[in-house]
Amino acid sequence: MKRLALAAAALSLAAFAPASPPGTAAAIASSTPADWRRVDPANLLYMEVGGGTVIIELAPQFAPLHVDNIRTLVRERFFDGTSINRVQENYVTQWGDATEKKPLGSAKAAVPLEGERPAKGLAFTRIRQRDAYAPRVGFVDGFPTAMDRKGNAWMTHCYATLGVGRGEATDSGSGAELFTSIGQAPRHLDRNYAAIGKVLQGMELLTAWPRGTGPLGFYEREAQRVPIKRVRLGSDVPPAERIELEVMRTDTPAFAAFVDARANRDRDGFLIGMKGVDLCNIRVPVRPVATP
Amino acid sequence: MKRLALAAAALSLAAFAPASPPGTAAAIASSTPADWRRVDPANLLYMEVGGGTVIIELAPQFAPLHVDNIRTLVRERFFDGTSINRVQENYVTQWGDATEKKPLGSAKAAVPLEGERPAKGLAFTRIRQRDAYAPRVGFVDGFPTAMDRKGNAWMTHCYATLGVGRGEATDSGSGAELFTSIGQAPRHLDRNYAAIGKVLQGMELLTAWPRGTGPLGFYEREAQRVPIKRVRLGSDVPPAERIELEVMRTDTPAFAAFVDARANRDRDGFLIGMKGVDLCNIRVPVRPVATP
Repeated sequence: MKRLALAAAALSLAAFAPASPPGTAAAIASSTPADWRRVDPANLLYMEVGGGTVIIELAPQFAPLHVDNIRTLVRERFFDGTSINRVQENYVTQWGDATEKKPLGSAKAAVPLEGERPAKGLAFTRIRQRDAYAPRVGFVDGFPTAMDRKGNAWMTHCYATLGVGRGEATDSGSGAELFTSIGQAPRHLDRNYAAIGKVLQGMELLTAWPRGTGPLGFYEREAQRVPIKRVRLGSDVPPAERIELEVMRTDTPAFAAFVDARANRDRDGFLIGMKGVDLCNIRVPVRPVATP
Repeated sequence: MKRLALAAAALSLAAFAPASPPGTAAAIASSTPADWRRVDPANLLYMEVGGGTVIIELAPQFAPLHVDNIRTLVRERFFDGTSINRVQENYVTQWGDATEKKPLGSAKAAVPLEGERPAKGLAFTRIRQRDAYAPRVGFVDGFPTAMDRKGNAWMTHCYATLGVGRGEATDSGSGAELFTSIGQAPRHLDRNYAAIGKVLQGMELLTAWPRGTGPLGFYEREAQRVPIKRVRLGSDVPPAERIELEVMRTDTPAFAAFVDARANRDRDGFLIGMKGVDLCNIRVPVRPVATP
């Protein structure tokens, strides 16, 4: 694409007629403040790595036990001084204690995967899109979600989903090793690994590292690991240092218009709209809270 | 995932009972030489970048005009000394002449997108998977492909698909600027940009670069660009230097077994098989040709 190519998407908005269904940017622009949800700081992780800060939202509604354990690990500064240890092409970036021997403090050493899924009773907003993996897909509080015919729901592994590393035993994950998906959505991990949140900002600090040449993409030499300076809970960050973010609500007509625009990119200046969009290609809008 | 986690996939093969449907690795292992296609060197690009060689297969069956033009550009050494100029997170890596002024030699300056699609009469092998973008999906000669109800087929933009950059005019792409998809499949580009091949080997040489901070992920400073030493056509590479690759044929029962295994990863040691797989999560196996 030349520079002009995708700029066309922005230019076409100038010609946008109010009576037409909106394009992606117009769908966001025409939302109201009530269409956005300010993220609870108690659910945010601030991870300082690679000269920047990755902001992650935890999802206790899907994984209360894991989130509780990770909050304990973070508060006790478990992650400070750990590192990114694995970058596997088109799959995952994983971080934590490379030695796998660092004491977990008062956190649990093992959190059962089974206790976290499948979650019933979540406020699921379905989108009418076909999916290769599940009969129904949609969102719960901004997290991409699939549902079976019995109403059991689970968070899906899309790009930027936060997952818990574990060994073979399904209760061997503590949250001391975390990963995020960096390529095509590895949906075969759904329900096999605990999906517990997603990266809201700073994915470029997790993806742009040399791929590990060891088995599974682990770095073979200590010097290759990327240091993590520290990880803090949003609610422990002094107010003056906080990065206040809001996420578009996924249970509103405004979000439905956004999904519709993603499925019909001809409204954004493309020649042909596909009349469809994959669940994992709907990146829920995130933006800084406007300061008055 | 701890080190043990994905190793389980390999370990489980030891316990694989011959009467069961095969897992992914077993499906490949039980293929015969006739299930593989040696890639025609006239369709290969060897691109030397980042200290390694990216191997790309061109698809003249989808894009004869573009492929012809790119062969001309390569033969006249257009790409030697150009660079990667754009890396946009979860979207594309793009390379070519950053000045957009380098003479195109005897290549055409403009190849119409319309002439290349939709392609009828290709040997399309359908896979029985749901897709958000098209009523039918499958493969043509190893390339991921979608088809409408009239039988028109087009190559899809999956991870590693090779695309042609262009300006707003649909005949403004020459092949002098190329891109590949580096994240979640940007399927909304399907039929909007010419998809003309795919990267068979060396994606890690295209994805692990700092993301550009300019508009659309372009690098803002010349020093950030990643030099491309040279690009050669496979058929122009001296036989002793060639990297002989073969791609699994996608029109065989062996490949159908591979797809089935990808859709049912419980056979690979996962707890739950999703009974489905996205077109773009089926990475067609590629391997070096065994030397006798």
